[in-house]
Amino acid sequence: MSGPRGAAEPETARIRATYLLRCGEGDEPERRARDLAWEQTVELPPGSVSAELEERAVGRVEELAETADGRWRARVSYPAAACAGDLAQLLNLLWGNVSLERGVRLERLRLPAGLRAELGGPAFGIEGVRRASGVRGRALLCAALKPLGSSPGELADLAREFALGGADLVKDDHSLADQPWAPFADRLRRCRDAVAEANARTGGRSLYVPSVSGSPERIAARVEAAVEAGCRGVLLNALPVGLPALRAEAARGRAFVLAHPSFAGGFLGPEHGVAPDVLLGTLFRLAGADGVVYPNAGGRFPFDVETCRAVNRRLREPLGGVRRAFPVPGGGINVERIPRWAEAYGHQTVFLIGGGLYRQPDRVGGTRRLIDELERIGTGGADPEP
Amino acid sequence: MSGPRGAAEPETARIRATYLLRCGEGDEPERRARDLAWEQTVELPPGSVSAELEERAVGRVEELAETADGRWRARVSYPAAACAGDLAQLLNLLWGNVSLERGVRLERLRLPAGLRAELGGPAFGIEGVRRASGVRGRALLCAALKPLGSSPGELADLAREFALGGADLVKDDHSLADQPWAPFADRLRRCRDAVAEANARTGGRSLYVPSVSGSPERIAARVEAAVEAGCRGVLLNALPVGLPALRAEAARGRAFVLAHPSFAGGFLGPEHGVAPDVLLGTLFRLAGADGVVYPNAGGRFPFDVETCRAVNRRLREPLGGVRRAFPVPGGGINVERIPRWAEAYGHQTVFLIGGGLYRQPDRVGGTRRLIDELERIGTGGADPEP
Repeated sequence: MSGPRGAAEPETARIRATYLLRCGEGDEPERRARDLAWEQTVELPPGSVSAELEERAVGRVEELAETADGRWRARVSYPAAACAGDLAQLLNLLWGNVSLERGVRLERLRLPAGLRAELGGPAFGIEGVRRASGVRGRALLCAALKPLGSSPGELADLAREFALGGADLVKDDHSLADQPWAPFADRLRRCRDAVAEANARTGGRSLYVPSVSGSPERIAARVEAAVEAGCRGVLLNALPVGLPALRAEAARGRAFVLAHPSFAGGFLGPEHGVAPDVLLGTLFRLAGADGVVYPNAGGRFPFDVETCRAVNRRLREPLGGVRRAFPVPGGGINVERIPRWAEAYGHQTVFLIGGGLYRQPDRVGGTRRLIDELERIGTGGADPEP
Repeated sequence: MSGPRGAAEPETARIRATYLLRCGEGDEPERRARDLAWEQTVELPPGSVSAELEERAVGRVEELAETADGRWRARVSYPAAACAGDLAQLLNLLWGNVSLERGVRLERLRLPAGLRAELGGPAFGIEGVRRASGVRGRALLCAALKPLGSSPGELADLAREFALGGADLVKDDHSLADQPWAPFADRLRRCRDAVAEANARTGGRSLYVPSVSGSPERIAARVEAAVEAGCRGVLLNALPVGLPALRAEAARGRAFVLAHPSFAGGFLGPEHGVAPDVLLGTLFRLAGADGVVYPNAGGRFPFDVETCRAVNRRLREPLGGVRRAFPVPGGGINVERIPRWAEAYGHQTVFLIGGGLYRQPDRVGGTRRLIDELERIGTGGADPEP
């Protein structure tokens, strides 16, 4: 099922998106795939535009094949020009209107080099986060400041304990914004000071990573305040604020960004949505995340190991000039299983331990033991380096 | 199932969210609901914080009852302070982490007056859009400029035809950004001129509504360019750009905003997601949409009439000081059925006719006939005025 090819446009300038389609009774798969390609570009039924315009702008069904589970795999290509170098329009092109249908899952995505370069990706990436934290040759540990409702002093006390234990990153819970219980400016100052004091005592380089979600203006102001306070990274709720807001932050390049997956579950349906590795891997990375938090297998969310490995792969695989990003598995990792996960995912990983460290009676010692485990494993993990 | 109440905090300062929970085998409904209330606030299991902090910050399960379809309706309240007057944090609080679970649907939402005022809602609302368009006593008609791939001249020719026919609004397709085929600045100028010329000939007041989606910076620049060109409204892909970006535009109040539902389908699962009236009605309205485009029943997307009516109701119901917003049903409305829908939805509606008008051989006459129909029906539609 190949459409006509525009001679003026090299094949490399096309976006390639693979969808799995669940066809209902009476749905003709070829028609369904063609309708999708037209809907996502010209929003008209096949045949309603001139041949020239079709060649220029309409999506093309390049391949269509039935899958083992009775769905149809449709490989559709779009002209890269359709998204005009804009991340919001890329999301729109890939899964905008068809999101309102049923049984359409975006499984795979390949972008031409020019578009990848325009979108940009992480400003720091794995290497940049390693430079900021000074950690080489092992996975990183990220502790979480919680809970919502705590005072700045209470959060700073926790931050001090995690930093004394040697946590590489100490991030705010993604629920922390500018609540009256712990206003942003006060929390930033207190936690920054606490981590700096601990670093002075241990000679370590723990980094405090404040949560900066809000309106576009607030994000920019909070990132600026964080950088002025000496922070090297921030945490952003990527989908509630919008992926273009994450992109804007990466383009400014003031601090590395850990992207939280809050709100992402809407897109992750097994029959209708976007595959987790495409959304949290490729798209979050292109948007500019230097690290992507996701719910690890075996925690309190229903991701399985294959899904996690797929996300890891997309974050680390070669992608033209786009920097690699850290997978940040979290979401209820049992501290006793850290060695197992470090072996499984390899050292290009940041392990996020929230409640598990929070509930330890000796947080300094508990943190220290985890760092020791990660040092012991070093680069000996199983995931091949892509 | 009532939790303890904080004496210092009036009950009106709580956000009330109703969820439908699908419990699997072994899931204990009371525990599931309580876990949700804790997850969405402190991200810790019940019992891991002090009584004071629990009272201050943790969500409370206020009611829990089984539904006819075997799910559990959990009414959960959250302290309004938890979202710190911030839309991104409200989304996070309501359906952030639980989006990553399964079988959790947000069904209903009530916000305290103070938070509604902080969020703000539309800058213009139904009344403001009516003032801008000069249309009283009937539903409005919105035509769509398409398809992607057309030149500015071709789009301007279409705009002229729709304006000569008397379309109240002439909006860009939401796929139109800054593509090389029709760069934003050129399209804006040509379409604005074409509509102005048509208005001069007819004595009408058609409004050209350009699509302005992009990064936060690009949106602001494009809205400013549109306003300078004399436009009164713009179209925004609300979820691809992020609801806070829509909120920022409403706060600036430079032009009314029609919000497009691209990408929204991920959230609209019947078992897991956000009810369409809560997402496209309440939340889009609070974010600042003056009109919300949604896929009408009977078109090419699977919304039913009850869903559409529920969205209409949320957009128009009294909501403290928050302005009412126009429902903008679209997505394949058959032009012959416009009278039926105008009767069904009432005159506080904008009907969006895209492909239906595009494919008419006589677009001027076809547009004119629809306006005549809407004038004939006037305020005689069935939907009660809320």
